[in-house]
Amino acid sequence: MAFQGTDFFRIDELYSEEELMVRNSVREFVDEQIIPIIEEHYMQGTFPMELVEKLGNLGMFGIKTSEKYGGAGANYTTYGLAMQELERGDSGVRSFASVQNSLVMFPIEAYASEEKKQEWLPKLASGKAIGCFGLTEPDHGSNPSGMLSNAKKIDGGYLLNGAKMWITNGSLADVAVVWAKLDGRITGFLVEKGMKGFSAPEMKNKHSLRASVTSELIFQDVEVPEINRLNVDGLKGPLSCLTQARYGIAYGAIGAAMQVYESSINYAKSRIQFDKPIAGFQLVQDKLVHIFDEISKAQLIAYRVGRLMESGNFKPEHISFAKRNNVKMALESCRIAREVHGANGILNEYPIMRHANNLESVYTYEGTHDIHTLILGQHITGIPAFK
Amino acid sequence: MAFQGTDFFRIDELYSEEELMVRNSVREFVDEQIIPIIEEHYMQGTFPMELVEKLGNLGMFGIKTSEKYGGAGANYTTYGLAMQELERGDSGVRSFASVQNSLVMFPIEAYASEEKKQEWLPKLASGKAIGCFGLTEPDHGSNPSGMLSNAKKIDGGYLLNGAKMWITNGSLADVAVVWAKLDGRITGFLVEKGMKGFSAPEMKNKHSLRASVTSELIFQDVEVPEINRLNVDGLKGPLSCLTQARYGIAYGAIGAAMQVYESSINYAKSRIQFDKPIAGFQLVQDKLVHIFDEISKAQLIAYRVGRLMESGNFKPEHISFAKRNNVKMALESCRIAREVHGANGILNEYPIMRHANNLESVYTYEGTHDIHTLILGQHITGIPAFK
Amino acid sequence: MAFQGTDFFRIDELYSEEELMVRNSVREFVDEQIIPIIEEHYMQGTFPMELVEKLGNLGMFGIKTSEKYGGAGANYTTYGLAMQELERGDSGVRSFASVQNSLVMFPIEAYASEEKKQEWLPKLASGKAIGCFGLTEPDHGSNPSGMLSNAKKIDGGYLLNGAKMWITNGSLADVAVVWAKLDGRITGFLVEKGMKGFSAPEMKNKHSLRASVTSELIFQDVEVPEINRLNVDGLKGPLSCLTQARYGIAYGAIGAAMQVYESSINYAKSRIQFDKPIAGFQLVQDKLVHIFDEISKAQLIAYRVGRLMESGNFKPEHISFAKRNNVKMALESCRIAREVHGANGILNEYPIMRHANNLESVYTYEGTHDIHTLILGQHITGIPAFK
Amino acid sequence: MAFQGTDFFRIDELYSEEELMVRNSVREFVDEQIIPIIEEHYMQGTFPMELVEKLGNLGMFGIKTSEKYGGAGANYTTYGLAMQELERGDSGVRSFASVQNSLVMFPIEAYASEEKKQEWLPKLASGKAIGCFGLTEPDHGSNPSGMLSNAKKIDGGYLLNGAKMWITNGSLADVAVVWAKLDGRITGFLVEKGMKGFSAPEMKNKHSLRASVTSELIFQDVEVPEINRLNVDGLKGPLSCLTQARYGIAYGAIGAAMQVYESSINYAKSRIQFDKPIAGFQLVQDKLVHIFDEISKAQLIAYRVGRLMESGNFKPEHISFAKRNNVKMALESCRIAREVHGANGILNEYPIMRHANNLESVYTYEGTHDIHTLILGQHITGIPAFK
Repeated sequence: MAFQGTDFFRIDELYSEEELMVRNSVREFVDEQIIPIIEEHYMQGTFPMELVEKLGNLGMFGIKTSEKYGGAGANYTTYGLAMQELERGDSGVRSFASVQNSLVMFPIEAYASEEKKQEWLPKLASGKAIGCFGLTEPDHGSNPSGMLSNAKKIDGGYLLNGAKMWITNGSLADVAVVWAKLDGRITGFLVEKGMKGFSAPEMKNKHSLRASVTSELIFQDVEVPEINRLNVDGLKGPLSCLTQARYGIAYGAIGAAMQVYESSINYAKSRIQFDKPIAGFQLVQDKLVHIFDEISKAQLIAYRVGRLMESGNFKPEHISFAKRNNVKMALESCRIAREVHGANGILNEYPIMRHANNLESVYTYEGTHDIHTLILGQHITGIPAFK
Repeated sequence: MAFQGTDFFRIDELYSEEELMVRNSVREFVDEQIIPIIEEHYMQGTFPMELVEKLGNLGMFGIKTSEKYGGAGANYTTYGLAMQELERGDSGVRSFASVQNSLVMFPIEAYASEEKKQEWLPKLASGKAIGCFGLTEPDHGSNPSGMLSNAKKIDGGYLLNGAKMWITNGSLADVAVVWAKLDGRITGFLVEKGMKGFSAPEMKNKHSLRASVTSELIFQDVEVPEINRLNVDGLKGPLSCLTQARYGIAYGAIGAAMQVYESSINYAKSRIQFDKPIAGFQLVQDKLVHIFDEISKAQLIAYRVGRLMESGNFKPEHISFAKRNNVKMALESCRIAREVHGANGILNEYPIMRHANNLESVYTYEGTHDIHTLILGQHITGIPAFK
Repeated sequence: MAFQGTDFFRIDELYSEEELMVRNSVREFVDEQIIPIIEEHYMQGTFPMELVEKLGNLGMFGIKTSEKYGGAGANYTTYGLAMQELERGDSGVRSFASVQNSLVMFPIEAYASEEKKQEWLPKLASGKAIGCFGLTEPDHGSNPSGMLSNAKKIDGGYLLNGAKMWITNGSLADVAVVWAKLDGRITGFLVEKGMKGFSAPEMKNKHSLRASVTSELIFQDVEVPEINRLNVDGLKGPLSCLTQARYGIAYGAIGAAMQVYESSINYAKSRIQFDKPIAGFQLVQDKLVHIFDEISKAQLIAYRVGRLMESGNFKPEHISFAKRNNVKMALESCRIAREVHGANGILNEYPIMRHANNLESVYTYEGTHDIHTLILGQHITGIPAFK
Repeated sequence: MAFQGTDFFRIDELYSEEELMVRNSVREFVDEQIIPIIEEHYMQGTFPMELVEKLGNLGMFGIKTSEKYGGAGANYTTYGLAMQELERGDSGVRSFASVQNSLVMFPIEAYASEEKKQEWLPKLASGKAIGCFGLTEPDHGSNPSGMLSNAKKIDGGYLLNGAKMWITNGSLADVAVVWAKLDGRITGFLVEKGMKGFSAPEMKNKHSLRASVTSELIFQDVEVPEINRLNVDGLKGPLSCLTQARYGIAYGAIGAAMQVYESSINYAKSRIQFDKPIAGFQLVQDKLVHIFDEISKAQLIAYRVGRLMESGNFKPEHISFAKRNNVKMALESCRIAREVHGANGILNEYPIMRHANNLESVYTYEGTHDIHTLILGQHITGIPAFK
């Protein structure tokens, strides 16, 4: 039977036909193309490159990008639902799409020169090119304004030096959106594969997002032409991208939780102990209800935030709230699902541990849980407590 | 400054002007008429009888009852918002209104004879009469179908025997909606004050809902005329009332949480320790953010459930979800608020402990937290695990 | 049946005969003299003065004070077990004894002039005099070194000015151990009832420790003779007293938890729902086991810390650990016990809500939970994070 | 610097010199021989066979077995401390030793024929032979008395049929202690490698205990000689083994927690964000204190239970308590440690995720967390609630 999702609050009634159509087509793709192969890639520590072009054909890159640049020109809700379904498959695959959509195509469309938009956006939309986003540095994870990477004006462009870490798709990327300080102000640059002095070694030995490529980016006197500079100034450049990406994560985490929930319900109803299905034990129902409730609430949040974004009435704190709540929800759902599955929960026959381990990364990247707590804390008290 | 409420997700945009108008007028009433006096009533263990007529004038009784019987004919959302504001004042006052609206006027309108509707509903709507609801028995709290109260057909009516417990407004009531078994089937009766053999002694020595009257109801060969019988058969009679009341509680609990949240924010911003407002400490922000987040989610739930009820697309499980989640949220909010207030949190200068103690009752009545867990557990697994 | 206590880990084997004898005599006293009357005092908001002399006769004051001053000269463990039993009765009664023992008799014996020791200790030991401890100020709860109370050297003594708050037994006290700054250094003084300019108005309107007297202390140009000055300098004076008292609380909280645990077990085994004792439901067993486990661990902690104190091998952090853990344990046990008791849990027929509300104060006084977290945090990281 | 362990409560004072000597020698072995290689084995999914003989030489097999059979004849505490240190290395290595000691050598010494004791125990003690324990079946994880494996009396022995699952070391084992029903009663047999009809295929594709071999055992008409039958009748046979093993796990889990705690403290003190070590942030201290506290309590429990076992005054419920509490503690410590390590926590440069994932198995095997809850629930209420 096809995946039915969870819709206690009849939220489907609130989605448009187009939104549901995209959701359903991605859902089907995930069932057919991702779930059957992903566990093996995870065990091997490889990204399923065979999916890139298919994801492009499905319209999973540039979902919100204008049609004139090859995108689908869809709304935030559509984008969110697509991320939900992809992350139901795997957080690594969703991360790939998040980066492409929100951290690469979004800033190129918003801030790059027309020439560069025309050069890169159609290729990125089709999956013929892959992008990455270089913000985080080894010693400045939660405090990007402390970055050390820097650009110096030279004739015809800039000389870029520095290093980035934890960069999804770094080693695969044809183009990198890189943030560095120019005269002390954060600015963005498009660094292209093959530029001299630019390398992107892969980070191995991960216990999480193993079906995703994570890399360092190293810039040693890389010459970046003037036309590759992004037209945005200060921290608001990278933050505007993160706002897009974090929103997608808030929807995405629901997908991961739905997948482990469905597996838990099915397992609990068919697993017999003491002569009855374990779904009939109070201690097991308590666990199942917990996951179910938290998913249902996360759906209300994601839906509302999407609509606020579409109406323009959102604040970054809405995104912090949704990312923080929904990822924690998904991580806890996995942990509870693991208990429901008993010993079987550790086998890769079930999607539980892969999602659980992936979500450890998602919990931390794009603003750790605690950083979002403090963002919300500042919002409600007016007092920053980061330091 | 007037109470501003909490509206992170801009839910006010989703309410109609009429809904907001009622919400705001009740809000003002609570600020002016309830909050200044309620703590003293709580300490003394008395219900503020002086509020009854005022609440009637404000339209707080019969909110959803047809106008032809003296009600306001408003929708579920309006009713919910009114309960929210009243419980911001005190759970006992909200309980009074819940009983009057959902457990007395609702079943009279739905199931009583036309004669009794005309006799009671206008008086109940204006607050000139008070009602109560007799379902729970001393030994059958979570399992009403085990009730022992019974009715026997006699000439012209019924002979009623039995005892009820935990009955809000029992000693104050002019009319009691009482459930008893007739030939083994649960049926409802209107038992009126002064009927021979009917008494309603107050239960004292409570540590919760102290500004509310809780009573036993005792029936010793009470003769109830035929016309006082309700036209409904089986457990669905009382359950239909509970569905109405539980919905109101789901909204109500948000009010209590808003009140302790507001107090917490104000306290934390003005309380100085180690030379700065405690609102600037990470451990305090973590607590404030927790309450804020949970209130915001509870608002999305209550809003959605109200609209589902209005469209007719709801199931009782929606109400179980909302009551269970929101009351637990409110209770935990009080506990955290108590920590934020430090030692001052135990004084009745702040609304914290009164709300905390009240919510212990709300957590348990109208279906305990665990019973609603098992209702939802059955919903998602198909397996009842009550026994 | 006499109260049996909880001793899963057979800790009684580790106590000496003398220790157990004291424990058992206090236990019996609590059953016979405190439990039957305490709930009524709590509801009325009065301290049971009739207990003071009896507690003196029982040896509950000056447990560790030398016999030459009328004390019992017992060890820390004996003191701890006595506090455990008293708090099983009520946290207010235990607070009374904690103050007398650790915050009044301890500093008098440790720091007062021989004349004052002989004057006060025997009277305090017998309960003929009552003491209090004035450290906390309205605006310096968690940061005593910020205190504003001050003493000025005058001829023959000191002129004392300032105000204290949250002082247990303040209005009852014949002698107050008061901490104030003299030339910027914290010093202690014995302020005696009747000294001109000294008043101690009671703080009313508490929702917690209602069977205990809490007061302000006000000093307006109070002349304190030289001989009343304590011979200790700096914050270590009051902290040495708090260490004693907090240790007693760590044991005391176990008593409160034992009482609500016993009530929960008895209730769950006798309360029938769905035709069986609720103790047979998984969701109820989960709650009971939780309380049971946490009490058992708290006992191991208290026992170990007492022995470390006796051997002189303790650090203040051991006390912080034990106070923090055990009070939180007791508070959570009450909350869970309240759930187990269902609606009955709110009645004063059961000891649940009184203990729960009392423990809100205990959680906060003598170092809030969070302050002890940060004390331990500094211990393990070497970095203070109070500000 | 050598690993220092965590000893807040000065428990080392309570251990004998011999106990500490063994603890320290295993500690050193783990630092030198296990930690440097284990992460690589984990990633590859292989057990480090090179350790077996070394562990034998170190005396890690047969710790409690009599010296006359090649064991060390040590006490329970020594055994516990050894397991603690081994699990600090890896739960898989500790599992290997647990099986060998408690599930194989213990029942052979307790129940096997003298001939078989002499044949197997010395080889097992030296690591020249490996054993496994076959109790759990695919469909009877939590309810072993429902097992389907069975033995039929034949001439000279028994005909064994059935299948076991989740058997640590199954594929490596030279001898398997197997439980099956003979005329409806559970009995034990020694099944030896090479017996016809006996196979032990390895279970692959695990996300947990990857440096450990887990297998199925399959018995198809295996002829087991009379002399291989164990002299014990009923469920108490396997339960007596589990009691031994679970006790070792209770100590073992402390080791895993200590390792992630030490890594967390070191990381937090050296990781700089916002210009200071993250160990100085309140939200981080709260996490570190949580782990520290829970480890310290777990140590008190394990110590006490060991001594109770040595004195013969223990009940199986003591073991249930200790296994349940300490494994949950260790699992939660890993999860919190992961947060403390930020993104770095997912790398195998740190021991966090390996321990976290391992403990998912440990949480479930040898009695799941919930089963131990219900064992304790029965202990305190007298009512079984397993079904």
